[in-house]
Amino acid sequence: MEYLVHIEVAWPADGNPDDLTRLTALERNRAGELAAAGTIRRMWRIPGQRANWGLWEAPDATALHAAIASLPLFPWLSVEVHPLAAHPSDPDRAGGR
Amino acid sequence: MEYLVHIEVAWPADGNPDDLTRLTALERNRAGELAAAGTIRRMWRIPGQRANWGLWEAPDATALHAAIASLPLFPWLSVEVHPLAAHPSDPDRAGGR
Amino acid sequence: MEYLVHIEVAWPADGNPDDLTRLTALERNRAGELAAAGTIRRMWRIPGQRANWGLWEAPDATALHAAIASLPLFPWLSVEVHPLAAHPSDPDRAGGR
Amino acid sequence: MEYLVHIEVAWPADGNPDDLTRLTALERNRAGELAAAGTIRRMWRIPGQRANWGLWEAPDATALHAAIASLPLFPWLSVEVHPLAAHPSDPDRAGGR
Amino acid sequence: MEYLVHIEVAWPADGNPDDLTRLTALERNRAGELAAAGTIRRMWRIPGQRANWGLWEAPDATALHAAIASLPLFPWLSVEVHPLAAHPSDPDRAGGR
Amino acid sequence: MEYLVHIEVAWPADGNPDDLTRLTALERNRAGELAAAGTIRRMWRIPGQRANWGLWEAPDATALHAAIASLPLFPWLSVEVHPLAAHPSDPDRAGGR
Amino acid sequence: MEYLVHIEVAWPADGNPDDLTRLTALERNRAGELAAAGTIRRMWRIPGQRANWGLWEAPDATALHAAIASLPLFPWLSVEVHPLAAHPSDPDRAGGR
Amino acid sequence: MEYLVHIEVAWPADGNPDDLTRLTALERNRAGELAAAGTIRRMWRIPGQRANWGLWEAPDATALHAAIASLPLFPWLSVEVHPLAAHPSDPDRAGGR
Amino acid sequence: MEYLVHIEVAWPADGNPDDLTRLTALERNRAGELAAAGTIRRMWRIPGQRANWGLWEAPDATALHAAIASLPLFPWLSVEVHPLAAHPSDPDRAGGR
Amino acid sequence: MEYLVHIEVAWPADGNPDDLTRLTALERNRAGELAAAGTIRRMWRIPGQRANWGLWEAPDATALHAAIASLPLFPWLSVEVHPLAAHPSDPDRAGGR
Repeated sequence: MEYLVHIEVAWPADGNPDDLTRLTALERNRAGELAAAGTIRRMWRIPGQRANWGLWEAPDATALHAAIASLPLFPWLSVEVHPLAAHPSDPDRAGGR
Repeated sequence: MEYLVHIEVAWPADGNPDDLTRLTALERNRAGELAAAGTIRRMWRIPGQRANWGLWEAPDATALHAAIASLPLFPWLSVEVHPLAAHPSDPDRAGGR
Repeated sequence: MEYLVHIEVAWPADGNPDDLTRLTALERNRAGELAAAGTIRRMWRIPGQRANWGLWEAPDATALHAAIASLPLFPWLSVEVHPLAAHPSDPDRAGGR
Repeated sequence: MEYLVHIEVAWPADGNPDDLTRLTALERNRAGELAAAGTIRRMWRIPGQRANWGLWEAPDATALHAAIASLPLFPWLSVEVHPLAAHPSDPDRAGGR
Repeated sequence: MEYLVHIEVAWPADGNPDDLTRLTALERNRAGELAAAGTIRRMWRIPGQRANWGLWEAPDATALHAAIASLPLFPWLSVEVHPLAAHPSDPDRAGGR
Repeated sequence: MEYLVHIEVAWPADGNPDDLTRLTALERNRAGELAAAGTIRRMWRIPGQRANWGLWEAPDATALHAAIASLPLFPWLSVEVHPLAAHPSDPDRAGGR
Repeated sequence: MEYLVHIEVAWPADGNPDDLTRLTALERNRAGELAAAGTIRRMWRIPGQRANWGLWEAPDATALHAAIASLPLFPWLSVEVHPLAAHPSDPDRAGGR
Repeated sequence: MEYLVHIEVAWPADGNPDDLTRLTALERNRAGELAAAGTIRRMWRIPGQRANWGLWEAPDATALHAAIASLPLFPWLSVEVHPLAAHPSDPDRAGGR
Repeated sequence: MEYLVHIEVAWPADGNPDDLTRLTALERNRAGELAAAGTIRRMWRIPGQRANWGLWEAPDATALHAAIASLPLFPWLSVEVHPLAAHPSDPDRAGGR
Repeated sequence: MEYLVHIEVAWPADGNPDDLTRLTALERNRAGELAAAGTIRRMWRIPGQRANWGLWEAPDATALHAAIASLPLFPWLSVEVHPLAAHPSDPDRAGGR
């Protein structure tokens, strides 16, 4: 099942920049693993913000939570999950799912 | 450029069902054309609602507006457009765009 | 997968009361079928409102949408779906479901 | 009387992780006691968030408050209580309550 | 149990004034019955609005809903119910309840 | 004149518990004085929250502000004041005021 | 006591323009009477809107409601009342009130 | 003085299309006059909506209101006005204003 | 031109009380100067809050910003400015402005 | 493509004023570069706030994000981007773009 996920990173403006650099590198790495596993299918930055929209795939909400909570920046994330249903006009529909 | 588009159909509950059937058929047809043209790339129904999330691609906001306004149900649509920027963790990134 | 569903009935105050009586009877009937099928597991009225909170179960968001859209009052419903994940403190957890 | 309760844990991202581990263990324990007492009937995690929806049962709002305030993480909780009334389509209705 | 209830009357500006006069008289009458029964304990008009705050008492949310739904203007009402718990600084506390 | 007052206490979760204990005792004491003076007429806890609804009486908004600002926890309070007008269905109406 | 009052006129776009002309003339007249009585002290149009901010004076919220409800356009008005307290920096303060 | 103005056209979906065509032509004409007079300086469509952002210039809010209210579609417009102050980083600043 | 200005003081509850006392005295002094200059025309406290509504007069938004930013508490202020246009029912209208 | 950008600076009230002075100077400098490059076309201060509205031009949302993120105050900025489409009544339209 696909989910549209809005993630905002609430890193404090006066936080340690080295910590952010290190955590961001770990985050990229973990996101790469989730992409390789097919969990993260698309990800876009929201212009002007430390935030993104992502298209995630997971068997159910429990597995989706586990994937999101595995992100190293999770304690700083503010997350909204939108469940998605199939739409007859979806171009990818013919290919199954 | 890609855009995340939220569309809600405000068809009145007491509207003529035949009109809705006819307009929905036209809408499906037009959406198919926009998908074939690469303008609508993905579309999902929001469960429980007459609403959808769509991933649209257009050269700029003017072209995007023209595409959305070409939908037969446009007078009944309530639309929010979210511009999308590239994200380093987007799995589709390597493939260009 | 379980979903928490908020449904508000926007029946117009000056609507035909006979239509509402008839549609409500059909709604009760359909809700009974969905309960028998295990799709509606619990349902509560929100005091003072023509609205309810429901605990629904469906394989995915597409099936959930089909179930909600099968309600006879669907054109008058305003619906919000909240996906639910497992919680370690859920009393029903050990017993499965 | 049943209540739908939304709880969000506002633990600071830079809080002491040992404190959180310890308090979470105490929280699980207390939640278990409340479940055994029939006060917490169901609990679900909201995917992507340190938050949950719970179905609580208490004689009245005063007793409900006492139960929620007995949670070890209470000082960090942001709580919304929704009172629930009986609905004719509730599958559990026949069984009384 | 006491509840704080916010009621807004959405009577259409172009509605039939005779109907409103008649229904308001019935409303006053029914409110008087509910006051006599101890269900409505206090009621205040919100200045400038066709709305009121009320202090209601009912055994539970199901009984409260039945009382509110018995108001002749119910189809035109938009209602929010706030459950109330005992507070140690309530002057009426000593007298029980 | 009566006012409906919503008060939320924003005491920091990591604040000094001894300070809170001491200030809460002073708060109770001051609330008792205001009750004795007829300024606080009713007070209810909002279940699950460090917040309350209160029914206050004061000659005007200036006197009401002075009463609220006299609470020892005032620097931590977030307050909303709702002015109340007389309603023909108020059971207390006959008794004057 | 002074009140800051926000009034929005929800006259339907397709309403009878003659009715609006007639009612607006009556409204101006009634507003003039309220100004002469010292109830309306200042009134400003909100640019771009059929709405205004007003500074009203009334002995209490009950009298204020009666004054607002006496406006001929009252059934079309959406009104918010903000109670005002004395401020030490108010230039008009020295003059009493 | 410059103002940022957000205008939304609430033309009913089932309104007479001929009326809309006629009024839109009149609107374009009037907007052209306001542009020629230097009152409308820039105007952008909000993609997907019957709405626009405009940069307007007027001596004060009273003149701005008169300009907006002169639009033939004014009865159908929902308008928000944001006053603008000079910013030291404005590229147009050197040129005065 | 007149503006309605909403100012909220976000002084931290655990801030240094001596600093607040000193800054408040400076604030009163500066407000007095702005009143003497005709910039602040009226000011009201919002009951229960560290906030006020003010009626300000300034040639344009740039001058208004300079006046507000000259307040010693400016770094702690959260400010909303509402531009005001002339209204035909304003009692002060005859007197010019 | 043009974008309307709302930027709010969340500099803490108790932040180091020397840091703010230094960062603001750097910010002005960087804004000047972006103006010279044609990326920032207009900028206005929102009266009473540490916030601005800007008219930005960038080839797409990715380039816009890079420009905004290059501002020295970026970690303290809260940013909302509104994409803009061409409007037939835009006075600048004839001149191309």
